[in-house]
Amino acid sequence: MEKLVLIRHGESQWNLENRFTGWTDVDLTDTGREQARHAGQLLKANGYIFDQGFTSVLKRAIKTLDYVLNEMDCMWIPVQKSWRLNERFYGALQGLNKAETAEKYGAEQVQLWRRDPHALPPAITREDPRYPGFDPRYNHLTDRERPLTENLSETMARVMPFWTERIMRAMRHQQKVVVAAHGNSLRALVQYIDKLSDEDVTNLDIPTGVPLVYELDDNLDKIQHYYLT
Amino acid sequence: MEKLVLIRHGESQWNLENRFTGWTDVDLTDTGREQARHAGQLLKANGYIFDQGFTSVLKRAIKTLDYVLNEMDCMWIPVQKSWRLNERFYGALQGLNKAETAEKYGAEQVQLWRRDPHALPPAITREDPRYPGFDPRYNHLTDRERPLTENLSETMARVMPFWTERIMRAMRHQQKVVVAAHGNSLRALVQYIDKLSDEDVTNLDIPTGVPLVYELDDNLDKIQHYYLT
Repeated sequence: MEKLVLIRHGESQWNLENRFTGWTDVDLTDTGREQARHAGQLLKANGYIFDQGFTSVLKRAIKTLDYVLNEMDCMWIPVQKSWRLNERFYGALQGLNKAETAEKYGAEQVQLWRRDPHALPPAITREDPRYPGFDPRYNHLTDRERPLTENLSETMARVMPFWTERIMRAMRHQQKVVVAAHGNSLRALVQYIDKLSDEDVTNLDIPTGVPLVYELDDNLDKIQHYYLT
Repeated sequence: MEKLVLIRHGESQWNLENRFTGWTDVDLTDTGREQARHAGQLLKANGYIFDQGFTSVLKRAIKTLDYVLNEMDCMWIPVQKSWRLNERFYGALQGLNKAETAEKYGAEQVQLWRRDPHALPPAITREDPRYPGFDPRYNHLTDRERPLTENLSETMARVMPFWTERIMRAMRHQQKVVVAAHGNSLRALVQYIDKLSDEDVTNLDIPTGVPLVYELDDNLDKIQHYYLT
């Protein structure tokens, strides 16, 4: 039996301000830092150890993992960061207040953008300062990999290669793995591991900063899952 | 012309207490954290950017690098941690107060242990709780690689493969590299890059938390070096 631990980053500044964040690299709040530390303390108290960490290239997830590993006294484990674990790219919604956006476009439209796997938020252009092509951390990506907007289904499509080539591979090599990532990249992982339908996943909300443990069998099929609280 | 930046970790708890530290995994002090942040601010103000970080598996160096990268807003770059960049393993001296050790063994003997490239501090046994074989971060090492004591020359011998296989290789691939490590692992790198004799290196003290910049030519031979202050 293998255990996989997923953690959504602690509260960020834009979670607090109720803004669409996506690939914007906002920092944790004091609450977010405390959530991350608490997650690490819980994991330590429950005897968890890790051999390998995975996270996105966004600091709210990277720092969440750092706080967790520091509390567990294992900052020395290798940590791999990948854009594939980034939050869903929210297109022209990035930076907008969620309530104001709902007023402008209607709550129903916003709900579609947020939860319909095929609904595309309004796209940015390649001249927009939010375009990932302007950010050196995405220099190695192809044009096609640098999104102008992204629906949940596309997020899942770019998360999956990381699951199979990195996370699953590490677990098959008996590595104990922790993944610190984002609401939608984790939702994609959970949908795959849990074999959830699009409808099931619509109602799935992963709380920030709470370790989500998956027990998997030798084929990496799910036995059970639970939150550590 | 390539620039390589070396940083010795900020002040640690045992620097403050004047104790031999070696592979003991002590944390930074508040002063050490501030030194690390200041180093990051200096690097940012001087327009430095990095593509790749290297550090040891000891938290005082890992955290120093984290603070530096956070100030420079590039926590997303890959960071590789290796035991080869660890501080010199100080054997049975680890944990002892330096002044008390000088009283007991004589200042001259302590100076030899600290600075003579071939002087071996008293060894621990494999039953000693300080033996690296008890620490999971060294599980993948061979018995021979897990020291019982280490002279400066042996430190250099285990640092060098990391220099050629990782740091030099990254620089040859046009990566801008930062290395956060320790007094003696950095001394080994500097001795090699600067072609220093054992006598030269005896008097070399690298201050904590100050970026040391090496400008290297296309063959990675030194053009000049300077501290960023």
